[in-house]
Amino acid sequence: MLEKTPSTDLGDAVHPFDRATRISRVEGKLQGVASADYFAFVGPFGGATAATLLRAIIEHPERAGDPLSVTVNFCAPVGSAPFELDARLLKATRSTQHWMVELVQDGGVAAFMTAVFAVRRPSWSHQTAAMPEAPPFDQIKPLPTSVIAPWAQQYQFRFVEGAPQYGKASNDHPASAYSRMWLSDTRPRRIDFLSLLSMSDTFFARIFHVLGAIVPIGTVSMTTVFHADSADLAAENTTMVLGAADANIFHKSFSDQTGQLWSPGGRLLATTSQVVYFKA
Amino acid sequence: MLEKTPSTDLGDAVHPFDRATRISRVEGKLQGVASADYFAFVGPFGGATAATLLRAIIEHPERAGDPLSVTVNFCAPVGSAPFELDARLLKATRSTQHWMVELVQDGGVAAFMTAVFAVRRPSWSHQTAAMPEAPPFDQIKPLPTSVIAPWAQQYQFRFVEGAPQYGKASNDHPASAYSRMWLSDTRPRRIDFLSLLSMSDTFFARIFHVLGAIVPIGTVSMTTVFHADSADLAAENTTMVLGAADANIFHKSFSDQTGQLWSPGGRLLATTSQVVYFKA
Repeated sequence: MLEKTPSTDLGDAVHPFDRATRISRVEGKLQGVASADYFAFVGPFGGATAATLLRAIIEHPERAGDPLSVTVNFCAPVGSAPFELDARLLKATRSTQHWMVELVQDGGVAAFMTAVFAVRRPSWSHQTAAMPEAPPFDQIKPLPTSVIAPWAQQYQFRFVEGAPQYGKASNDHPASAYSRMWLSDTRPRRIDFLSLLSMSDTFFARIFHVLGAIVPIGTVSMTTVFHADSADLAAENTTMVLGAADANIFHKSFSDQTGQLWSPGGRLLATTSQVVYFKA
Repeated sequence: MLEKTPSTDLGDAVHPFDRATRISRVEGKLQGVASADYFAFVGPFGGATAATLLRAIIEHPERAGDPLSVTVNFCAPVGSAPFELDARLLKATRSTQHWMVELVQDGGVAAFMTAVFAVRRPSWSHQTAAMPEAPPFDQIKPLPTSVIAPWAQQYQFRFVEGAPQYGKASNDHPASAYSRMWLSDTRPRRIDFLSLLSMSDTFFARIFHVLGAIVPIGTVSMTTVFHADSADLAAENTTMVLGAADANIFHKSFSDQTGQLWSPGGRLLATTSQVVYFKA
């Protein structure tokens, strides 16, 4: 076990997200295991897998600074058995670190992450993007999630615009790919880098929105950029974000997806983009 | 030397971009060298470096399919001496490949790339994003580039909106981060994956636009997603793209940048995002 991390504090007090992204040290190697709480249809929810990989860096003794940009590639479904995590510092400069983490299961790479960490220095500050409008979190009813995959039950989705409406669009009459929602862990948990990364992957696949139907999909690669450091996140001190997502194109079995995650106070915490395989 | 690639066809007929991104095989190892034609201030233009890394995959005998998503991290300035490229296929599935390429110089990693390649299958197709308006390429004068870095002289920048106007903005009165331009190689070259990736990095740093001034900057990580495969690019058969770029935030020494590259025919060829260090 790694020491001095909340994730090792087992018991009822541990949040399901921390339990799902927990890392142990077994015979000198980092090990994790997917949690049934965050399962999707053919494997764990990608956001939880990504957060587990990021935790391997954050808890690494050589880590310096906060995550700045993270790219995670999903190569194969992660199974229910324990997996190994191999984290390597590829290059460090005075204020940045470049990391690579591989998730290995059954002798093969199932996912990997590259990440830039940085000690962020004061500078001129300017947010050009404006937070989209939204009624307060409490004034919107959460989407019922009892009939969908376990991972979705770990989140509250409170749609402001573009809630999925199955059966109301089609290939010939596609609906908008844009949606906007308040998002929080079902059991509230203060937003940190791990949850922001996981939340980057909580937007329902854009193809579900445009076709008004659930089709087979899989995220292939996701990049999330953090626009706040630890001190900024501590100052926001929130358990919810406003998430907006859109897509530019669906073509030859792949689509893109772009997203923004805002604090209730109007700070842009993270932007994200991903490539999604779809069958339609 | 690798065989069967245009880049090995040396002589005046070789385009400067192909010369700059050329890869040789020396004693069994892949080797490249930065071209003075594409130098920036403290090293080669990142777009040329990224294209060289991508070429190492495209020319690899195990490569299957076309690039789908590429992330390149810049860790240290690349010097003028030759560098080694180490390309590894991390995982292959029936229709996708996950690659990693490291650029090693003086015993250290100066840049690396992860890339997803895919054999793209026919599917339902839908472009939700609309191409921004622009007068024809020939009706806009190219930006004079004779006084700026060598790499910029390799491109024609024909601004439709948001041409940099130095001295007309300030920290207290920042200008828009948005710009839109026609872009081509100065010596015309048919758009392919290599040039699209390089062009993803040709947008002038957004901080130059908002502050109306040139300040020290450096791209840390760039992700480009291709929305066209080889057949699509061949069908477009163009030497120019319409590029639009924007930024969401400048904060604690880093900003983001998002971009789109369109064919003159209105097809979205690639989207890109990057994280940029700045000093201001």
